[in-house]
Amino acid sequence: MLAMGEFKHFVIVKFKEGVAVDELTKGMEKLVSEIDAVKSFEWGRDIESLDVLRQGFTHAFLMTFNKKEDFAAFQSHPNHVEFSTTFSAAIENIVLLDFPSTLVKAPA
Amino acid sequence: MLAMGEFKHFVIVKFKEGVAVDELTKGMEKLVSEIDAVKSFEWGRDIESLDVLRQGFTHAFLMTFNKKEDFAAFQSHPNHVEFSTTFSAAIENIVLLDFPSTLVKAPA
Repeated sequence: MLAMGEFKHFVIVKFKEGVAVDELTKGMEKLVSEIDAVKSFEWGRDIESLDVLRQGFTHAFLMTFNKKEDFAAFQSHPNHVEFSTTFSAAIENIVLLDFPSTLVKAPA
Repeated sequence: MLAMGEFKHFVIVKFKEGVAVDELTKGMEKLVSEIDAVKSFEWGRDIESLDVLRQGFTHAFLMTFNKKEDFAAFQSHPNHVEFSTTFSAAIENIVLLDFPSTLVKAPA
């Protein structure tokens, strides 16, 4: 099974020391719940990878959109723009990747 | 809606110059199709993010497992161990994050 499809917005983050990470993840959960263009959202904090392999990054945020245009709508949404300011101030390092996803093996 | 659930293995990669990336992604697709412990697998190549935000990383690989034990089974699977040797030789930079996923917004 090989399907081309959804558009993904993947972010990995290292937060600054002393940042209230819980508030930020709650803020992000609120944000995506307010914006219909976001199809799905999940996140997690690394518990397993070796330090040398995660390079200081601790959190991953994975958003899924039906199409690239929905991602664009999310990015320019005023709530997102506002949240980004808060979020940017809290991070020490970040990598973003945005891409059409190739689904090779789908959940049964 | 807030559900705790699947275990994720999230990898972002910058390949060395001249590497046959297509062969590697095909190899990875073959690998996950052979190992039942992998529930789903998707990947992509960034087309959108600004250079400064992706920090040289180009590809994201996301594997989903029903539980952490399935991830452990995947990691120690001989086919994975063999593939990792080939894969490691081709990469210039890599970040791995392994985490139980918090699903905030689920696909309808």
